[in-house]
Amino acid sequence: MARVKDFVDSQNFTKDELLDIVKLGIIIKKNIKAGYPLNVLYHKTLGMIFEQPSTRTRVSFETAMTQLGGHAQYLAPGQIQLGAHENLKDTAMVLARLTDILMARVIKHSSVEVLAKYASVPVINGMSDYNHPTQEMGDITTIFEHMPKGKKFEDLKIVFVGDATQVCASLMMVTTKLGGNFVQFGPKGFQLKEEFQEIGRKNCAVSGGSMLITDNAEEALKDADFIYTDVWYGLYEAELSEEERMNIFYPKYQVDMDMIKMASPNVKFMHCLPAKRGEEVTDEVIDSEYSIVIDQAENRLTAMRALLVYFMDKMDETIEICKKNLGE
Amino acid sequence: MARVKDFVDSQNFTKDELLDIVKLGIIIKKNIKAGYPLNVLYHKTLGMIFEQPSTRTRVSFETAMTQLGGHAQYLAPGQIQLGAHENLKDTAMVLARLTDILMARVIKHSSVEVLAKYASVPVINGMSDYNHPTQEMGDITTIFEHMPKGKKFEDLKIVFVGDATQVCASLMMVTTKLGGNFVQFGPKGFQLKEEFQEIGRKNCAVSGGSMLITDNAEEALKDADFIYTDVWYGLYEAELSEEERMNIFYPKYQVDMDMIKMASPNVKFMHCLPAKRGEEVTDEVIDSEYSIVIDQAENRLTAMRALLVYFMDKMDETIEICKKNLGE
Amino acid sequence: MARVKDFVDSQNFTKDELLDIVKLGIIIKKNIKAGYPLNVLYHKTLGMIFEQPSTRTRVSFETAMTQLGGHAQYLAPGQIQLGAHENLKDTAMVLARLTDILMARVIKHSSVEVLAKYASVPVINGMSDYNHPTQEMGDITTIFEHMPKGKKFEDLKIVFVGDATQVCASLMMVTTKLGGNFVQFGPKGFQLKEEFQEIGRKNCAVSGGSMLITDNAEEALKDADFIYTDVWYGLYEAELSEEERMNIFYPKYQVDMDMIKMASPNVKFMHCLPAKRGEEVTDEVIDSEYSIVIDQAENRLTAMRALLVYFMDKMDETIEICKKNLGE
Repeated sequence: MARVKDFVDSQNFTKDELLDIVKLGIIIKKNIKAGYPLNVLYHKTLGMIFEQPSTRTRVSFETAMTQLGGHAQYLAPGQIQLGAHENLKDTAMVLARLTDILMARVIKHSSVEVLAKYASVPVINGMSDYNHPTQEMGDITTIFEHMPKGKKFEDLKIVFVGDATQVCASLMMVTTKLGGNFVQFGPKGFQLKEEFQEIGRKNCAVSGGSMLITDNAEEALKDADFIYTDVWYGLYEAELSEEERMNIFYPKYQVDMDMIKMASPNVKFMHCLPAKRGEEVTDEVIDSEYSIVIDQAENRLTAMRALLVYFMDKMDETIEICKKNLGE
Repeated sequence: MARVKDFVDSQNFTKDELLDIVKLGIIIKKNIKAGYPLNVLYHKTLGMIFEQPSTRTRVSFETAMTQLGGHAQYLAPGQIQLGAHENLKDTAMVLARLTDILMARVIKHSSVEVLAKYASVPVINGMSDYNHPTQEMGDITTIFEHMPKGKKFEDLKIVFVGDATQVCASLMMVTTKLGGNFVQFGPKGFQLKEEFQEIGRKNCAVSGGSMLITDNAEEALKDADFIYTDVWYGLYEAELSEEERMNIFYPKYQVDMDMIKMASPNVKFMHCLPAKRGEEVTDEVIDSEYSIVIDQAENRLTAMRALLVYFMDKMDETIEICKKNLGE
Repeated sequence: MARVKDFVDSQNFTKDELLDIVKLGIIIKKNIKAGYPLNVLYHKTLGMIFEQPSTRTRVSFETAMTQLGGHAQYLAPGQIQLGAHENLKDTAMVLARLTDILMARVIKHSSVEVLAKYASVPVINGMSDYNHPTQEMGDITTIFEHMPKGKKFEDLKIVFVGDATQVCASLMMVTTKLGGNFVQFGPKGFQLKEEFQEIGRKNCAVSGGSMLITDNAEEALKDADFIYTDVWYGLYEAELSEEERMNIFYPKYQVDMDMIKMASPNVKFMHCLPAKRGEEVTDEVIDSEYSIVIDQAENRLTAMRALLVYFMDKMDETIEICKKNLGE
C-alpha cells in the first residue's frame, strides 16, 4: 500500500520507496521484453490531463496502460481547462469517479496539488512549473542501467549543464535524496534557486550525498559519470529568444566533445529530449557512443509502468507475476 | 433486442424499457464495483463524434467501453465536421462500417437524426440543442439511488430551477414519462416552450404524472424531493453575458440555503455540472450534505454502460453474467 | 517475416507479396465477421502520426488495432510536428522505443521515408503527397471482392476519371504491378506525370499489364470494369478554387449515368471518399447499384488489419488461427 496516495513530488517519499519503484519498473520491463503480457490494471482507466502539450509523456503513459491491460484517455490542451469553466475541486471530484487514476501536466504546480487533494484516486504529476518527478524516475532507472563498473549510486557524480529548468531541479532533488553527488554547471542567474538548494542540503544531510552549484567548468566536470542537459528556452512564463539564450549559454554551456573529454572516460550523456541540436548539445555528442538519450527516453515508459502499478497498489502482485513468468 | 435501433430521444421508448435500462446500469455498476471484469463488448469500437466539447460525456463513454472490454474513439470538434466536407449520409454510412456503435454530441438535433437514419449501427445522442437523453438516464438512476424512504418514483416532486436548457427539457420529459411530478421554477421567457409542454402533457395523460411551470417560489419548492439546476448561460445560439443572466435569474433563481429550507427536509440537490458556483448555486449548497452532484456525475458512467450494452443487444447476457458473478 | 520492414510504397513489394496481404485481409475480415476475437497484436501499440487530418484512415487503423487485441494512439495534427521542434531522426528513434509500430500521414513523402529509416519498428505510410498505399490495398481487396464473373485481375480494365491525385497514382501503380489494365481519363495538365508513367511502364513490362493516359472518353471508358474517381481539389500545395476546378473538369470528367453507360454493363463505381457530390460524381451514380463506395470504405479497415499483422510478422500465425476458427 502506497504510504502517500499521489506522486506529486518525489520528496514525499523515502529513498527506499523510490528505489522500490525503480526496481518495480525494471522487472516489468524485463517481463514485457520477454513477451509475457500483464493484466494487473485490467480494464482500468488512466485520465491524462495535459495543460501543456507533450508527445513523449503522453505516448509513454498511454502505451504503459495498454501494456498493463488498461486504457489511457488523452485530454489534450484546450479539451480540458483546469479551473477555467469549473472549480478545480469539482473537476477533481468528478474525474475521480469516472477514472481509476489521473495524471496531469500542469501550467502551475498548485493545480496538480489541488487535483491530488480533492481526487479520491491517485494523481501523478506529469510535470509542472516546479518539478518533473516522472522524468526523475526514468532518469534514475537509466542511471542504474548504465552504472559504471564497480560503482554504486552513492559514488556517482551527476552533472547537469545549463539552465535550472524543472528537469534540473528534479534531477538534483532525486540525486541528493538517493545519496548521489549532484552538480549544476550553469551561469549565475540561471542556477537553482535557494528554495531548491535548501531541499538539496536537507537531502544531503540525511543521505550523505552532495550538491554543488558552480560556473567553474573544471570543478564541475572533472570525473563526471553522467553529463545531463536540457534546452535553453527558459520556463513557461519567461521564454528566451534564440539570441538571448545563445548570448547567455553559448559556447560555455554547450555539451560538445571538449566538455565530454573533461569528464570521466566512461561518462554518459543524458538529455530529457526534445533536444535543440546545435544549441545545448552538438550532433557529435548526441549521436556518439557516449549518448544514452534513446535508452533514457524509453525509460520514461519504464517509470510510468512502475508508477501506475505502485500507486494502484499492485506492486507485490505484479512482482510475483513477473518473477513467475521469468522463472526467477 | 432493442425495439428501436437508436437512442436519440427517450420519448421513443416505453416506461418499462427506460426502467430496464436503469436497472441494467445498476447491476453493471454493482458488478464492476465488486471487481468482476466484463467483456460483453469485447473488441467492439464506439465512435464518439463531438461537435461540441464535453469532458464528462467523453470520459464517461470512453471509460464505459474500456470496462466492457471494448474501445471508444474520440473524434474531437474540428476533427470531424458533420455535413461540412462530406454529405452527412455518406459519413454515417461509412462510419457504420468502421465501428460497432456511434455516439454524437451535435450542434443541431437534425444531425443526430440523420446519422441514426443512415448508419447501420446504433446511434446514441450525447446531447443536442433539443435534448440530453444520456443525462436523463444518469439522473433517473441517481434519483432511484437516493429515493426518500417510503416513497416511490410516482410520489416524487422533482423541481428544476432556472433556465429551460436541454437538461431541463430532458428532465421534464423523462420524469413525466415515468409518472413523476415535475416542476420548472423559472422566469417567464425562460420557461419550457409549448412544444415541450405538449410532450409533457401527453406523458402525464398516460403515466399519471404531473407537470407545473411557474415563477412562484413557494408553489414550486414546497415539499420538493429533488432540486435540480443548470447554468444560466443560455443555449448555443443565444449565449447570455454574465450581466444579462444575473439580471434575469439572480437572486430569485439561485439555489441557496433559503431555497433548500423551503423544500422537503430530506431534499437532495442535483446539477448536471459543470456548475458556475455563485451564480445558479451557492458554495454552501453544492458542498452541503444535501448535494448529490458527485454521485450524479458518476451515474453518467452508469447510464452509458447500460445504454451501450442495451443497444448492442447484450442486456440479457450481461444481466446473467453479473448475477452469476454477484451470486444473486 | 516481411522482406522489407516498412510499407512506404507498394512498389517495394512483389506481386505475390501484395496478393498475400490482400488474402490475409480477406481471411481476417471473414474471421471477425464470424465473431471470433483475435489477439494476435495483444497489448501492442500503434502510434498514429497525422500531419494532415483524416477521419477514415484514423478510424480504420484505430478499430483495426482494437480488433487485433492492441491499441492505437492518435497523434493529431498540431500535437506532433515532424521535424519542427525536434530533429525527425530523434522523433523516429524515440517513438520506436515507446510503440510497437507506427503509421504516418505526412505532408511531404520524405518525412515518412526518414521515419522509416530511423525507427526500429515498422512504419506504414498513411498517405503522402506522393502516394496512398493503404488505399491501394483496400481498393485491390474491393476489386477482388467485386470481380466480374469469369474474369481475373489481368483481364480487368480499371479507369480512373479526373485529376492525377495521389489516389490516381497509387491506383495506377498497384494495378500495373498486379498485371491489370489501367486507364487515366483526364485533361492534359492533370494527367499522371512522367515520373509515374515510367513506373507504370516498368510494371507493365514485368506483369503484362497495360497503362493508357488519355482525354478521349470513348477510348477510356469502353468496356471499363471499374470507374474510379476522386475530388478535384488538387494537391496540398496547389488547391484549386471551386470555379477553377469546375472550368477544368466539368462536365466532361464528371462521372454521371451517361459515362456509366459507356462502360461495361457490369461496371462498378469506386471513390476513395469523401466525395464532393455534384462535382466529380452525381448523386445518381454514387447512390446507384453500380456504386461500391461503402464496401470500398470498409475495406480500408480490411487492408489496415492485414498490413498491421503482416508488418508485425504475424501473418502465418494469424492465418492458422482464422482457418481453425472458421473450420477451413
